[in-house]
Amino acid sequence: MRLPTTPTPIVLAPMAGGPGTPELVAAVGSAGALGFLPSGYVDVDTLRTNIDVVRSRIGGSFGVNLFVPAAPDAERLQRAEQYVARLAAWAETVGMQPDRPAYTDDHYTDKLSLLVEQRTRVVSFTFGLPDQEAVDALHDVGSSVLVTVTNPEEASAAVARGADGLVAQGWEAGAHQGGWLDSAEHWGVLPLLQSLVEQVDTPLVAAGGIATGRAVAAVLTAGAQAAMLGTAFMRCPEAGTAPSHAAALHGSGPTLMTRAFTGRPARALSNELASRFDAVAPDAYPEVHVATSRMRADARSRDHTDRYHLWAGQAHALARAVPAADVVATLDGEARAALQRATLSWGAGAPAKPGRQG
Amino acid sequence: MRLPTTPTPIVLAPMAGGPGTPELVAAVGSAGALGFLPSGYVDVDTLRTNIDVVRSRIGGSFGVNLFVPAAPDAERLQRAEQYVARLAAWAETVGMQPDRPAYTDDHYTDKLSLLVEQRTRVVSFTFGLPDQEAVDALHDVGSSVLVTVTNPEEASAAVARGADGLVAQGWEAGAHQGGWLDSAEHWGVLPLLQSLVEQVDTPLVAAGGIATGRAVAAVLTAGAQAAMLGTAFMRCPEAGTAPSHAAALHGSGPTLMTRAFTGRPARALSNELASRFDAVAPDAYPEVHVATSRMRADARSRDHTDRYHLWAGQAHALARAVPAADVVATLDGEARAALQRATLSWGAGAPAKPGRQG
Repeated sequence: MRLPTTPTPIVLAPMAGGPGTPELVAAVGSAGALGFLPSGYVDVDTLRTNIDVVRSRIGGSFGVNLFVPAAPDAERLQRAEQYVARLAAWAETVGMQPDRPAYTDDHYTDKLSLLVEQRTRVVSFTFGLPDQEAVDALHDVGSSVLVTVTNPEEASAAVARGADGLVAQGWEAGAHQGGWLDSAEHWGVLPLLQSLVEQVDTPLVAAGGIATGRAVAAVLTAGAQAAMLGTAFMRCPEAGTAPSHAAALHGSGPTLMTRAFTGRPARALSNELASRFDAVAPDAYPEVHVATSRMRADARSRDHTDRYHLWAGQAHALARAVPAADVVATLDGEARAALQRATLSWGAGAPAKPGRQG
Repeated sequence: MRLPTTPTPIVLAPMAGGPGTPELVAAVGSAGALGFLPSGYVDVDTLRTNIDVVRSRIGGSFGVNLFVPAAPDAERLQRAEQYVARLAAWAETVGMQPDRPAYTDDHYTDKLSLLVEQRTRVVSFTFGLPDQEAVDALHDVGSSVLVTVTNPEEASAAVARGADGLVAQGWEAGAHQGGWLDSAEHWGVLPLLQSLVEQVDTPLVAAGGIATGRAVAAVLTAGAQAAMLGTAFMRCPEAGTAPSHAAALHGSGPTLMTRAFTGRPARALSNELASRFDAVAPDAYPEVHVATSRMRADARSRDHTDRYHLWAGQAHALARAVPAADVVATLDGEARAALQRATLSWGAGAPAKPGRQG
């Protein structure tokens, strides 16, 4: 199984919860990049419709992302309940109300079946390792399997499971960290890439804080086969990003990695909800996500940017508010220029000769 | 004022406290890279001797680093005293004893005068912005001035002060973060580089988690003029790294950024002291450093790796235990190969053409 070859090694990250529309996926695909449609937080019929929209526009050369669910866990639910009680006390003071924490597998099995039935070109997994049956079923219909990893341990597990490629996601990345092992090391994308290149032969897609063609070229030079960008596309007109969110991305505000919104580490622009609850937010996904989902959507619809999840990678201020095709073309041109500049200024010369420098 | 041109754009980070010996600086210089001698934690006579040793071996093509002292601060001292009291209670149980916290400027003014007198080729500053008089005095004798920055705000201030170049240090870096402003964003080196390239025209030296030639090539492609590496040289025979520290670097243990050892954020391998005190360690440098310095040196001399500062960048496991000249030559060769590979596989081709992908 191999990864699809596209004219430019740029990949649109799957962005669940709004930004990653079928229109955005189709637009980047038309421009020569590889788009990923998110399947998270939508039902199976909506996913099927979204796939149909993309397929009708660009044929089959795109991917779909699946969230691998954790098993239900009574202790995790309890942690979520305690946290949401604290959150509710504050929420009430600003006229909001969370729902009860609850478990969901987000229709994982049905979505997986749909992707197999559709012979989806590439299926990427986040939040967990798909079981062997899932990987085999996808391989049987010709799909490539990508697994998102954030550390070397997850990379080893994904390769052993038969992944055709790894999304190597650094700590700089916006929104959720896609790994599943509780790693003490919060790997930046460049150290992570260096480690994985030495460790595995599997193709790597680098993600995390990549916003310009220079960085696309940098991760390719470091050994990645492609660069995955999310935030860089969030201000495109084809994206479903809320206007108040898109406007906030344009600022220079700091981001933080926090469990405050969903119970799982995710990078967002710092705001009141994150600041108030970061220190006490537990490891409790999807239960906290389920409890806060409606409340956050409501805040978003009212442009209350202090109360919802302003997902953002570290280089968010560099995201451009232009059509997705222009983002792809600009990134591609910048990346080629950066590579050429580095080669001309240094890489093409002879290796360093030892010698006394005066 | 310009930065020195060396045969290979590799820079040895200044490593105070042992690893950064004059022998190591001379060895990397002989191999075509630019070495930085640390001036921190030594007296002026020792610094003068160290400079003489390097100069006798490789002439003047090397740099010296200076720690810019903060002004004395009664509240900071008080925070240090409270913290060191807690630390002392634990230290006693393992037969150790911290000293009293105290302020020091580490002979900054005398060291600066020495560097001016010596017409040091490059002087780099960390922990603060040198005042205008210092920058002018160095420029007057032909020295280039580098300032270490960890965020865009510090970069602006350093450029305004007349810095000839910036060391752009990412969060992945081992040992102390070299900035001075309390930034909410913990910039990874790649997002930081992308931001600074857009913001300033000043040459950038990238630092943080760079351990291989691939990463050297990556940061050059991203827009840096050179790559600065510290941990990558710590296992060289010329380095003054304690054997138990060098051995620990070879493992895959996680690192953390902590104030536990010195009162200033620094990345170290996780160990008992860091784990126990990270959460309560205050912003109180140099007072905590002064109080724990002797105790940590003592633990180091006894190979008690759980009780001293095992400085390490995130990619520490990739550091090679070979002579410094071999590290430089290997990095240089790897970097050129990485650039060539990226150019051949992609960069040399025509820009992406929009088109329907089947």
